Amino acid sequence: AIRDAVLGQLARGGSLAGRRFLVTAGPTVEPLDPVRFLSNHSSGKQGYAIAEALAFRGADVALVSGPTALAAPSGVRRIQVSTAREMLAACEAELPVDVAVCTAAVSDWRAKVQATGKIKKTSEGPPTLELIENPDILAALCRHAQRPKLVVGFAAETDDVLVNAKAKRIRKGCDWLVANDVRQGVFGADRNTVTLIDGTEAVNWPEMDKRSVANLLVDRIEEFLIAH
Amino acid sequence: AIRDAVLGQLARGGSLAGRRFLVTAGPTVEPLDPVRFLSNHSSGKQGYAIAEALAFRGADVALVSGPTALAAPSGVRRIQVSTAREMLAACEAELPVDVAVCTAAVSDWRAKVQATGKIKKTSEGPPTLELIENPDILAALCRHAQRPKLVVGFAAETDDVLVNAKAKRIRKGCDWLVANDVRQGVFGADRNTVTLIDGTEAVNWPEMDKRSVANLLVDRIEEFLIAH
Repeated sequence: AIRDAVLGQLARGGSLAGRRFLVTAGPTVEPLDPVRFLSNHSSGKQGYAIAEALAFRGADVALVSGPTALAAPSGVRRIQVSTAREMLAACEAELPVDVAVCTAAVSDWRAKVQATGKIKKTSEGPPTLELIENPDILAALCRHAQRPKLVVGFAAETDDVLVNAKAKRIRKGCDWLVANDVRQGVFGADRNTVTLIDGTEAVNWPEMDKRSVANLLVDRIEEFLIAH
Repeated sequence: AIRDAVLGQLARGGSLAGRRFLVTAGPTVEPLDPVRFLSNHSSGKQGYAIAEALAFRGADVALVSGPTALAAPSGVRRIQVSTAREMLAACEAELPVDVAVCTAAVSDWRAKVQATGKIKKTSEGPPTLELIENPDILAALCRHAQRPKLVVGFAAETDDVLVNAKAKRIRKGCDWLVANDVRQGVFGADRNTVTLIDGTEAVNWPEMDKRSVANLLVDRIEEFLIAH
Protein backbone atom coordinates (compact mmCIF):
# COMPACT_ATOMS: atom_id res chain seq x y z
CA ALA A 1 0.00 0.00 0.00
CA ILE A 2 2.88 2.36 0.83
CA ARG A 3 4.57 1.35 -2.43
CA ASP A 4 1.32 2.09 -4.33
CA ALA A 5 0.96 5.49 -2.65
CA VAL A 6 4.56 6.41 -3.48
CA LEU A 7 4.19 5.23 -7.06
CA GLY A 8 0.90 7.10 -7.33
CA GLN A 9 2.58 10.27 -6.09
CA LEU A 10 5.42 9.85 -8.57
CA ALA A 11 2.98 9.17 -11.37
CA ARG A 12 0.82 12.22 -10.76
CA GLY A 13 1.95 14.88 -13.14
CA GLY A 14 3.84 12.12 -15.00
CA SER A 15 4.83 12.42 -18.62
CA LEU A 16 1.60 10.76 -19.85
CA ALA A 17 -0.82 12.56 -17.54
CA GLY A 18 -4.10 13.34 -19.29
CA ARG A 19 -3.54 10.74 -22.04
CA ARG A 20 -6.05 7.91 -22.47
CA PHE A 21 -4.85 4.40 -23.36
CA LEU A 22 -6.55 1.15 -24.16
CA VAL A 23 -4.52 -2.03 -23.66
CA THR A 24 -5.80 -5.53 -24.42
CA ALA A 25 -4.15 -8.57 -22.88
CA GLY A 26 -4.47 -12.28 -22.23
CA PRO A 27 -6.24 -14.94 -24.26
CA THR A 28 -9.89 -15.16 -25.20
CA VAL A 29 -11.82 -18.27 -24.25
CA GLU A 30 -14.44 -19.54 -26.67
CA PRO A 31 -16.86 -22.07 -25.15
CA LEU A 32 -18.00 -25.19 -27.00
CA ASP A 33 -20.28 -26.05 -24.09
CA PRO A 34 -20.30 -25.22 -20.33
CA VAL A 35 -17.16 -27.33 -19.79
CA ARG A 36 -15.05 -27.23 -22.96
CA PHE A 37 -13.44 -24.33 -24.77
CA LEU A 38 -11.06 -23.28 -27.49
CA SER A 39 -8.31 -20.84 -26.54
CA ASN A 40 -4.76 -19.59 -27.20
CA HIS A 41 -1.66 -19.62 -25.08
CA SER A 42 -1.16 -16.22 -23.48
CA SER A 43 -0.10 -15.43 -19.93
CA GLY A 44 -1.02 -11.75 -20.33
CA LYS A 45 2.36 -10.74 -18.87
CA GLN A 46 3.45 -8.52 -21.76
CA GLY A 47 0.17 -6.60 -21.88
CA TYR A 48 -0.03 -6.18 -18.11
CA ALA A 49 3.56 -4.88 -18.08
CA ILE A 50 2.65 -2.29 -20.72
CA ALA A 51 -0.46 -1.20 -18.81
CA GLU A 52 1.62 -0.86 -15.63
CA ALA A 53 4.35 1.16 -17.41
CA LEU A 54 1.73 3.52 -18.86
CA ALA A 55 -0.03 4.03 -15.50
CA PHE A 56 3.34 4.65 -13.83
CA ARG A 57 3.79 7.63 -16.16
CA GLY A 58 0.42 9.02 -15.18
CA ALA A 59 -1.70 7.77 -18.11
CA ASP A 60 -5.37 6.87 -17.81
CA VAL A 61 -5.27 3.15 -18.71
CA ALA A 62 -8.14 0.77 -19.46
CA LEU A 63 -6.88 -2.82 -19.52
CA VAL A 64 -9.34 -5.12 -21.30
CA SER A 65 -8.20 -8.58 -20.27
CA GLY A 66 -9.12 -12.15 -21.01
CA PRO A 67 -8.75 -14.72 -18.21
CA THR A 68 -5.24 -14.67 -16.69
CA ALA A 69 -3.67 -15.52 -13.33
CA LEU A 70 -2.39 -11.93 -12.94
CA ALA A 71 -3.45 -9.20 -10.52
CA ALA A 72 -4.54 -5.86 -12.00
CA PRO A 73 -1.54 -3.48 -12.00
CA SER A 74 -1.74 -0.54 -9.63
CA GLY A 75 -3.53 2.49 -11.06
CA VAL A 76 -4.99 0.55 -14.02
CA ARG A 77 -8.71 0.12 -14.62
CA ARG A 78 -9.19 -3.54 -15.60
CA ILE A 79 -12.22 -4.82 -17.51
CA GLN A 80 -12.36 -8.64 -17.49
CA VAL A 81 -13.85 -10.50 -20.44
CA SER A 82 -13.86 -14.06 -21.80
CA THR A 83 -14.76 -14.20 -25.47
CA ALA A 84 -13.56 -12.20 -28.49
CA ARG A 85 -17.01 -10.68 -28.87
CA GLU A 86 -16.97 -9.51 -25.26
CA MET A 87 -13.47 -8.12 -25.74
CA LEU A 88 -14.49 -6.13 -28.83
CA ALA A 89 -17.53 -4.66 -27.05
CA ALA A 90 -15.40 -3.71 -24.02
CA CYS A 91 -12.80 -2.05 -26.26
CA GLU A 92 -15.36 -0.05 -28.24
CA ALA A 93 -16.90 1.14 -24.97
CA GLU A 94 -13.52 2.69 -24.02
CA LEU A 95 -13.22 4.84 -27.16
CA PRO A 96 -12.11 7.54 -27.71
CA VAL A 97 -8.52 6.93 -26.57
CA ASP A 98 -5.24 8.43 -27.73
CA VAL A 99 -3.49 5.10 -28.18
CA ALA A 100 -4.56 1.44 -28.32
CA VAL A 101 -2.03 -1.34 -27.65
CA CYS A 102 -3.48 -4.72 -28.59
CA THR A 103 -1.44 -7.52 -27.06
CA ALA A 104 -4.35 -9.95 -26.49
CA ALA A 105 -4.20 -13.35 -28.16
CA VAL A 106 -7.70 -13.28 -29.61
CA SER A 107 -9.11 -16.59 -30.85
CA ASP A 108 -9.55 -16.26 -34.60
CA TRP A 109 -12.44 -18.75 -34.47
CA ARG A 110 -15.22 -19.92 -32.20
CA ALA A 111 -17.60 -22.87 -32.30
CA LYS A 112 -20.51 -22.25 -34.67
CA VAL A 113 -22.86 -23.84 -32.16
CA GLN A 114 -22.32 -23.35 -28.45
CA ALA A 115 -24.10 -26.17 -26.59
CA THR A 116 -26.01 -25.15 -23.45
CA GLY A 117 -25.40 -28.56 -21.83
CA LYS A 118 -22.22 -30.63 -21.76
CA ILE A 119 -21.81 -32.48 -25.08
CA LYS A 120 -21.94 -36.22 -24.27
CA LYS A 121 -19.44 -38.75 -25.55
CA THR A 122 -21.31 -41.16 -27.79
CA SER A 123 -20.46 -44.44 -29.47
CA GLU A 124 -20.49 -42.62 -32.83
CA GLY A 125 -17.18 -41.02 -31.93
CA PRO A 126 -16.19 -37.38 -31.54
CA PRO A 127 -18.30 -34.61 -33.05
CA THR A 128 -16.96 -32.56 -35.94
CA LEU A 129 -16.36 -29.07 -34.73
CA GLU A 130 -17.66 -26.41 -37.07
CA LEU A 131 -15.87 -23.12 -36.53
CA ILE A 132 -16.82 -19.58 -37.50
CA GLU A 133 -14.72 -16.45 -37.60
CA ASN A 134 -14.50 -14.15 -34.60
CA PRO A 135 -14.44 -10.37 -34.94
CA ASP A 136 -10.96 -8.99 -35.63
CA ILE A 137 -10.48 -6.57 -32.75
CA LEU A 138 -7.27 -4.98 -34.01
CA ALA A 139 -8.69 -4.36 -37.49
CA ALA A 140 -11.98 -3.11 -36.03
CA LEU A 141 -10.17 -0.50 -33.90
CA CYS A 142 -8.12 0.59 -36.93
CA ARG A 143 -11.25 1.09 -39.06
CA HIS A 144 -13.31 2.68 -36.27
CA ALA A 145 -14.80 6.16 -36.71
CA GLN A 146 -13.07 7.01 -33.42
CA ARG A 147 -9.77 5.45 -34.44
CA PRO A 148 -7.00 6.11 -31.90
CA LYS A 149 -4.13 8.32 -33.13
CA LEU A 150 -1.82 5.36 -32.72
CA VAL A 151 -2.76 1.69 -32.88
CA VAL A 152 -0.11 -0.88 -31.93
CA GLY A 153 -0.72 -4.56 -32.66
CA PHE A 154 1.10 -7.66 -31.54
CA ALA A 155 1.64 -10.73 -33.71
CA ALA A 156 2.63 -14.18 -32.51
CA GLU A 157 4.18 -16.00 -35.45
CA THR A 158 5.91 -19.33 -35.88
CA ASP A 159 7.04 -19.19 -39.53
CA ASP A 160 8.50 -16.43 -41.71
CA VAL A 161 7.96 -14.10 -38.80
CA LEU A 162 9.02 -10.87 -40.49
CA VAL A 163 7.22 -11.51 -43.78
CA ASN A 164 3.99 -12.52 -42.03
CA ALA A 165 4.17 -9.66 -39.56
CA LYS A 166 4.77 -6.99 -42.23
CA ALA A 167 1.81 -8.28 -44.23
CA LYS A 168 -0.29 -8.37 -41.09
CA ARG A 169 0.48 -4.72 -40.24
CA ILE A 170 -0.85 -3.63 -43.62
CA ARG A 171 -3.82 -6.01 -43.64
CA LYS A 172 -4.97 -4.94 -40.18
CA GLY A 173 -4.32 -1.26 -40.81
CA CYS A 174 -2.35 -0.67 -37.63
CA ASP A 175 0.53 1.82 -37.29
CA TRP A 176 3.02 -0.37 -35.51
CA LEU A 177 3.22 -4.11 -35.16
CA VAL A 178 5.30 -5.86 -32.55
CA ALA A 179 6.18 -9.32 -33.84
CA ASN A 180 7.48 -12.17 -31.78
CA ASP A 181 8.54 -15.64 -32.69
CA VAL A 182 6.55 -17.91 -30.40
CA ARG A 183 8.53 -20.99 -31.30
CA GLN A 184 11.01 -19.85 -28.63
CA GLY A 185 8.81 -20.69 -25.66
CA VAL A 186 7.80 -17.10 -24.93
CA PHE A 187 4.35 -18.12 -23.57
CA GLY A 188 4.29 -17.61 -19.82
CA ALA A 189 7.97 -16.65 -19.81
CA ASP A 190 9.31 -13.42 -18.32
CA ARG A 191 11.55 -12.58 -21.28
CA ASN A 192 10.71 -11.68 -24.85
CA THR A 193 12.45 -11.04 -28.16
CA VAL A 194 10.50 -8.76 -30.48
CA THR A 195 10.71 -6.86 -33.74
CA LEU A 196 9.00 -3.47 -33.96
CA ILE A 197 7.63 -2.84 -37.45
CA ASP A 198 6.30 0.53 -38.58
CA GLY A 199 5.66 1.96 -42.04
CA THR A 200 9.34 2.47 -42.76
CA GLU A 201 11.42 -0.08 -40.91
CA ALA A 202 11.62 -3.26 -38.84
CA VAL A 203 13.86 -3.02 -35.80
CA ASN A 204 14.97 -6.14 -33.96
CA TRP A 205 15.14 -5.56 -30.23
CA PRO A 206 17.55 -7.68 -28.22
CA GLU A 207 16.12 -10.27 -25.82
CA MET A 208 15.03 -8.58 -22.59
CA ASP A 209 12.44 -9.05 -19.86
CA LYS A 210 8.82 -8.16 -20.63
CA ARG A 211 8.95 -5.12 -18.32
CA SER A 212 11.85 -3.73 -20.36
CA VAL A 213 9.96 -4.37 -23.61
CA ALA A 214 7.06 -2.46 -22.02
CA ASN A 215 9.21 0.47 -20.95
CA LEU A 216 10.96 0.80 -24.30
CA LEU A 217 7.67 0.59 -26.17
CA VAL A 218 6.15 3.26 -23.91
CA ASP A 219 9.23 5.44 -24.59
CA ARG A 220 8.51 5.12 -28.32
CA ILE A 221 4.83 5.92 -27.77
CA GLU A 222 5.74 9.06 -25.80
CA GLU A 223 8.01 10.21 -28.63
CA PHE A 224 5.16 9.63 -31.09
CA LEU A 225 2.69 11.62 -28.99
CA ILE A 226 5.15 14.52 -28.66
CA ALA A 227 5.72 14.54 -32.43
CA HIS A 228 2.01 14.31 -33.36
CA ALA B 1 9.13 -23.36 6.28
CA ILE B 2 8.36 -23.63 10.01
CA ARG B 3 4.75 -24.45 9.17
CA ASP B 4 5.94 -27.15 6.75
CA ALA B 5 8.25 -28.62 9.36
CA VAL B 6 5.49 -28.70 11.98
CA LEU B 7 3.00 -30.20 9.53
CA GLY B 8 5.62 -32.73 8.44
CA GLN B 9 6.18 -33.69 12.08
CA LEU B 10 2.45 -34.06 12.66
CA ALA B 11 2.06 -36.07 9.49
CA ARG B 12 4.83 -38.55 10.31
CA GLY B 13 3.19 -41.58 11.76
CA GLY B 14 -0.11 -40.14 10.47
CA SER B 15 -3.14 -42.31 9.86
CA LEU B 16 -2.22 -42.88 6.19
CA ALA B 17 1.52 -43.44 6.63
CA GLY B 18 2.84 -46.09 4.27
CA ARG B 19 -0.14 -45.80 1.89
CA ARG B 20 0.43 -44.82 -1.74
CA PHE B 21 -2.01 -42.51 -3.52
CA LEU B 22 -2.36 -41.20 -7.03
CA VAL B 23 -4.35 -37.99 -7.49
CA THR B 24 -5.04 -36.37 -10.87
CA ALA B 25 -6.04 -32.72 -11.08
CA GLY B 26 -6.50 -29.76 -13.37
CA PRO B 27 -7.41 -29.68 -17.06
CA THR B 28 -5.62 -31.22 -19.98
CA VAL B 29 -4.59 -28.97 -22.85
CA GLU B 30 -4.80 -30.39 -26.38
CA PRO B 31 -2.90 -28.34 -28.95
CA LEU B 32 -4.28 -27.62 -32.43
CA ASP B 33 -1.03 -25.84 -33.32
CA PRO B 34 1.72 -24.07 -31.31
CA VAL B 35 -0.70 -21.27 -30.35
CA ARG B 36 -4.22 -22.71 -30.14
CA PHE B 37 -5.66 -25.46 -27.98
CA LEU B 38 -8.79 -27.22 -26.81
CA SER B 39 -9.28 -27.52 -23.05
CA ASN B 40 -11.77 -27.77 -20.18
CA HIS B 41 -12.50 -25.46 -17.30
CA SER B 42 -10.76 -26.74 -14.18
CA SER B 43 -8.88 -24.73 -11.55
CA GLY B 44 -7.42 -27.89 -10.00
CA LYS B 45 -8.45 -26.67 -6.52
CA GLN B 46 -10.47 -29.75 -5.55
CA GLY B 47 -7.75 -32.20 -6.56
CA TYR B 48 -4.98 -30.16 -4.94
CA ALA B 49 -7.01 -29.98 -1.70
CA ILE B 50 -7.38 -33.79 -1.73
CA ALA B 51 -3.66 -34.30 -2.35
CA GLU B 52 -2.88 -31.91 0.51
CA ALA B 53 -5.31 -33.65 2.90
CA LEU B 54 -3.78 -37.04 2.07
CA ALA B 55 -0.20 -35.82 2.56
CA PHE B 56 -1.20 -34.19 5.86
CA ARG B 57 -2.17 -37.63 7.14
CA GLY B 58 1.19 -39.06 6.16
CA ALA B 59 0.32 -40.67 2.81
CA ASP B 60 2.77 -40.93 -0.10
CA VAL B 61 1.01 -38.79 -2.73
CA ALA B 62 1.75 -38.45 -6.44
CA LEU B 63 -0.23 -35.54 -7.92
CA VAL B 64 -0.40 -35.76 -11.71
CA SER B 65 -1.53 -32.31 -12.73
CA GLY B 66 -2.46 -30.49 -15.90
CA PRO B 67 -1.61 -26.77 -16.16
CA THR B 68 -2.99 -24.79 -13.20
CA ALA B 69 -2.07 -21.59 -11.37
CA LEU B 70 -1.64 -23.51 -8.08
CA ALA B 71 1.53 -24.26 -6.11
CA ALA B 72 2.27 -27.90 -5.29
CA PRO B 73 0.93 -28.71 -1.80
CA SER B 74 3.52 -29.36 0.89
CA GLY B 75 4.68 -32.97 1.04
CA VAL B 76 3.15 -33.89 -2.32
CA ARG B 77 5.15 -35.11 -5.31
CA ARG B 78 3.74 -33.26 -8.33
CA ILE B 79 4.17 -34.47 -11.92
CA GLN B 80 3.15 -31.77 -14.41
CA VAL B 81 1.65 -32.74 -17.77
CA SER B 82 -0.31 -31.05 -20.57
CA THR B 83 -2.19 -33.55 -22.71
CA ALA B 84 -4.42 -36.51 -21.85
CA ARG B 85 -1.86 -38.88 -23.33
CA GLU B 86 0.87 -37.43 -21.13
CA MET B 87 -1.43 -37.67 -18.12
CA LEU B 88 -2.20 -41.34 -18.77
CA ALA B 89 1.50 -42.19 -19.14
CA ALA B 90 2.35 -40.33 -15.92
CA CYS B 91 -0.44 -42.13 -14.03
CA GLU B 92 0.59 -45.56 -15.26
CA ALA B 93 4.18 -44.84 -14.23
CA GLU B 94 2.96 -44.33 -10.63
CA LEU B 95 1.31 -47.77 -10.31
CA PRO B 96 0.98 -49.68 -8.09
CA VAL B 97 -0.89 -47.45 -5.63
CA ASP B 98 -3.47 -48.26 -2.96
CA VAL B 99 -5.93 -45.63 -4.10
CA ALA B 100 -6.40 -43.43 -7.17
CA VAL B 101 -8.51 -40.26 -6.99
CA CYS B 102 -9.15 -38.88 -10.47
CA THR B 103 -10.36 -35.28 -10.29
CA ALA B 104 -8.72 -34.09 -13.52
CA ALA B 105 -10.94 -32.66 -16.24
CA VAL B 106 -9.49 -34.68 -19.10
CA SER B 107 -10.35 -33.53 -22.62
CA ASP B 108 -12.44 -36.26 -24.21
CA TRP B 109 -11.11 -35.26 -27.63
CA ARG B 110 -8.06 -33.84 -29.31
CA ALA B 111 -7.36 -32.52 -32.80
CA LYS B 112 -6.77 -35.32 -35.29
CA VAL B 113 -3.97 -33.30 -36.85
CA GLN B 114 -1.72 -31.14 -34.72
CA ALA B 115 -0.12 -28.48 -36.94
CA THR B 116 3.57 -27.80 -36.31
CA GLY B 117 3.22 -24.14 -37.44
CA LYS B 118 0.46 -21.67 -36.60
CA ILE B 119 -2.57 -22.33 -38.81
CA LYS B 120 -3.08 -19.19 -40.94
CA LYS B 121 -6.39 -17.44 -41.37
CA THR B 122 -7.34 -17.69 -45.04
CA SER B 123 -10.03 -16.16 -47.18
CA GLU B 124 -11.70 -19.58 -47.41
CA GLY B 125 -12.86 -19.18 -43.82
CA PRO B 126 -12.19 -21.24 -40.72
CA PRO B 127 -10.93 -24.80 -40.99
CA THR B 128 -13.15 -27.69 -39.94
CA LEU B 129 -11.68 -29.24 -36.86
CA GLU B 130 -11.55 -33.01 -36.98
CA LEU B 131 -11.43 -34.48 -33.50
CA ILE B 132 -10.39 -37.92 -32.29
CA GLU B 133 -10.95 -39.57 -28.95
CA ASN B 134 -8.43 -39.27 -26.15
CA PRO B 135 -7.56 -42.17 -23.86
CA ASP B 136 -10.00 -42.53 -20.94
CA ILE B 137 -7.68 -42.30 -17.94
CA LEU B 138 -10.24 -43.25 -15.29
CA ALA B 139 -11.41 -46.30 -17.24
CA ALA B 140 -7.82 -47.28 -18.04
CA LEU B 141 -6.84 -47.26 -14.35
CA CYS B 142 -9.94 -49.33 -13.49
CA ARG B 143 -9.09 -51.97 -16.12
CA HIS B 144 -5.36 -51.97 -15.38
CA ALA B 145 -3.58 -55.19 -14.34
CA GLN B 146 -2.31 -53.20 -11.33
CA ARG B 147 -5.72 -51.73 -10.54
CA PRO B 148 -5.71 -49.77 -7.25
CA LYS B 149 -7.85 -51.25 -4.45
CA LEU B 150 -10.04 -48.17 -4.63
CA VAL B 151 -10.59 -45.94 -7.65
CA VAL B 152 -12.53 -42.71 -7.14
CA GLY B 153 -13.69 -40.72 -10.16
CA PHE B 154 -15.12 -37.23 -10.46
CA ALA B 155 -17.83 -36.25 -12.92
CA ALA B 156 -18.75 -32.72 -13.96
CA GLU B 157 -22.29 -32.80 -15.28
CA THR B 158 -24.76 -30.17 -16.40
CA ASP B 159 -27.93 -32.22 -17.01
CA ASP B 160 -29.55 -35.15 -15.16
CA VAL B 161 -26.55 -35.12 -12.88
CA LEU B 162 -27.46 -38.17 -10.79
CA VAL B 163 -28.59 -40.35 -13.70
CA ASN B 164 -25.53 -39.51 -15.81
CA ALA B 165 -23.15 -39.93 -12.88
CA LYS B 166 -24.53 -43.34 -11.86
CA ALA B 167 -24.24 -44.58 -15.44
CA LYS B 168 -20.74 -43.16 -15.64
CA ARG B 169 -19.61 -45.00 -12.47
CA ILE B 170 -20.62 -48.32 -14.01
CA ARG B 171 -19.32 -47.53 -17.50
CA LYS B 172 -15.91 -46.46 -16.21
CA GLY B 173 -15.67 -49.30 -13.70
CA CYS B 174 -14.72 -47.12 -10.73
CA ASP B 175 -15.73 -47.82 -7.13
CA TRP B 176 -16.91 -44.37 -6.16
CA LEU B 177 -17.92 -41.42 -8.26
CA VAL B 178 -18.11 -37.88 -6.95
CA ALA B 179 -20.61 -35.95 -9.07
CA ASN B 180 -20.99 -32.23 -9.18
CA ASP B 181 -23.35 -30.00 -11.05
CA VAL B 182 -21.14 -27.55 -12.88
CA ARG B 183 -23.99 -25.29 -13.89
CA GLN B 184 -23.56 -23.68 -10.46
CA GLY B 185 -20.33 -21.87 -11.28
CA VAL B 186 -18.08 -24.28 -9.37
CA PHE B 187 -15.12 -23.74 -11.76
CA GLY B 188 -12.43 -21.77 -9.99
CA ALA B 189 -14.65 -21.34 -6.92
CA ASP B 190 -13.63 -22.30 -3.40
CA ARG B 191 -16.89 -24.08 -2.56
CA ASN B 192 -18.43 -27.23 -3.97
CA THR B 193 -21.64 -29.25 -3.73
CA VAL B 194 -21.18 -32.92 -4.50
CA THR B 195 -22.91 -36.28 -4.46
CA LEU B 196 -20.89 -39.36 -3.53
CA ILE B 197 -22.07 -42.42 -5.45
CA ASP B 198 -20.93 -45.96 -4.64
CA GLY B 199 -22.36 -49.35 -5.53
CA THR B 200 -25.22 -49.04 -3.07
CA GLU B 201 -26.17 -45.43 -2.55
CA ALA B 202 -25.86 -41.79 -3.63
CA VAL B 203 -25.29 -39.36 -0.77
CA ASN B 204 -25.75 -35.63 -1.27
CA TRP B 205 -23.23 -33.64 0.71
CA PRO B 206 -24.16 -30.12 1.76
CA GLU B 207 -22.36 -27.20 0.12
CA MET B 208 -18.96 -26.71 1.74
CA ASP B 209 -15.52 -25.44 0.83
CA LYS B 210 -13.28 -27.65 -1.32
CA ARG B 211 -10.94 -28.35 1.62
CA SER B 212 -13.86 -29.73 3.61
CA VAL B 213 -14.93 -31.89 0.66
CA ALA B 214 -11.32 -33.14 0.56
CA ASN B 215 -11.21 -33.92 4.29
CA LEU B 216 -14.54 -35.73 4.32
CA LEU B 217 -13.58 -37.75 1.25
CA VAL B 218 -10.26 -38.71 2.84
CA ASP B 219 -12.16 -39.76 5.99
CA ARG B 220 -14.25 -42.09 3.83
CA ILE B 221 -11.13 -43.43 2.10
CA GLU B 222 -9.51 -44.15 5.48
CA GLU B 223 -12.60 -46.08 6.60
CA PHE B 224 -12.46 -48.08 3.35
CA LEU B 225 -8.78 -48.92 3.82
CA ILE B 226 -9.37 -50.05 7.42
CA ALA B 227 -12.29 -52.27 6.31
CA HIS B 228 -10.45 -53.81 3.32
